[in-house]
Amino acid sequence: MRNIKLIIEYDGTNYCGWQTQKNANSIQETIQRAIEKITGTTPNLNGSGRTDAGVHALGQVANFMTESKIPAERFAYALNAVLPKDIIIKASSEADIDFHARYSAKGKQYSYLLLNSKQPTALYRTLAYHVSYGDKLDINEMVAASKGFVGTHDFYGFMSTGSSIKDTTKTIYDIKIEQKDDFIKLTYNGNGFLYNMVRIISGTLLYAGIGRIDANQIFEIIASKDRTRAGITLPAHGLYLEKVFY
Amino acid sequence: MRNIKLIIEYDGTNYCGWQTQKNANSIQETIQRAIEKITGTTPNLNGSGRTDAGVHALGQVANFMTESKIPAERFAYALNAVLPKDIIIKASSEADIDFHARYSAKGKQYSYLLLNSKQPTALYRTLAYHVSYGDKLDINEMVAASKGFVGTHDFYGFMSTGSSIKDTTKTIYDIKIEQKDDFIKLTYNGNGFLYNMVRIISGTLLYAGIGRIDANQIFEIIASKDRTRAGITLPAHGLYLEKVFY
Repeated sequence: MRNIKLIIEYDGTNYCGWQTQKNANSIQETIQRAIEKITGTTPNLNGSGRTDAGVHALGQVANFMTESKIPAERFAYALNAVLPKDIIIKASSEADIDFHARYSAKGKQYSYLLLNSKQPTALYRTLAYHVSYGDKLDINEMVAASKGFVGTHDFYGFMSTGSSIKDTTKTIYDIKIEQKDDFIKLTYNGNGFLYNMVRIISGTLLYAGIGRIDANQIFEIIASKDRTRAGITLPAHGLYLEKVFY
Repeated sequence: MRNIKLIIEYDGTNYCGWQTQKNANSIQETIQRAIEKITGTTPNLNGSGRTDAGVHALGQVANFMTESKIPAERFAYALNAVLPKDIIIKASSEADIDFHARYSAKGKQYSYLLLNSKQPTALYRTLAYHVSYGDKLDINEMVAASKGFVGTHDFYGFMSTGSSIKDTTKTIYDIKIEQKDDFIKLTYNGNGFLYNMVRIISGTLLYAGIGRIDANQIFEIIASKDRTRAGITLPAHGLYLEKVFY
């Protein structure tokens, strides 16, 4: 038995998300079917974590066990030949037999892409969230607010309800805010993220950018554990799973 | 009578191109129908030039005459409310009555976006042309080759056949080559471009990048006026009309 690790880029626009669901088109199921096509066996594909409908990935990681004799690095080429064009295996390699894309993960990098312009975008309409010019963002205030999130905190108030997770304490190593033309990219590194946490923090930084929240309130908002005090959950299509660290 | 100038961004993927054609979905026709919806009159929309099926625009310019009383800058908002999401009016303004998007144009900026990576791209599959890792591009050679195109030349050999144009002499002011991660962006400024000229020059620079053409051969290839000595015509989906100068 061999353990194959995949690094995956996908455009989440036309999928119900990573996780297999009944009567819906998932990324996990699509890749599993592709693996079955080239190995003859249906694998159990472990992703590093779920992504919601519309969320993109530049470096999702997954692994599966196989008895196939295909050289590990050839899996990427073989799978890309049968996968739809909105899912690409960037690389495939042989992993230790006990490697598990989810349980072995030590951290993740996500990014959220904003477009701050008067009019929406035609070309990047599924790739960036449009914030209209009326809300011209104050980048300095966003950077100041981002500092409040860095470190180890109980992020209970930055999680969508419905999640059954017990331990809501997470560590954010850093948040980088870059501006290029009308695009603003927020990049998050952390040891893990709660359900919708990146989208809610991004919404809170957006609120800082439009002056609805003060940068120096962030600690207090985190400590309140009150979801209603944080910003809105920004839409899925601006979110990217960039990297998984092991 | 008023003359309204539009600056237009579009994703060319789902259109037959700018120009209205029978039984096909054109960008020109789609915008004309939107103008008719908000003014009640079918306009004659002049574009700065045609773009082929799949070609994108960040700053296409067009103008039309109208008796509508809508303030010029409100046209962008009103049109975006009725246009499909892959066509966006970035700005609208009042132009001199004799302004004509095509005949008044003094120059244009185009760009061509390459992705030079082992595997294709899922997220940018309609926005960049994938050059596989097997053809790892030599950027220095591409920059050297690009110098050969700058200036005033008879670009007869860099035009697709079938064009009936008489004067094939054009001036390229500059060609900029930028690399970011696996993306390479070629930006062209000139007083005008022949049919497919940017896609053929980009194909020729690609050939320089893979060592199939020497940078110091460019003058000779231009002088030969022989289409077969230039590089291939790269696909439409990597090409962007960036700006039109007046």
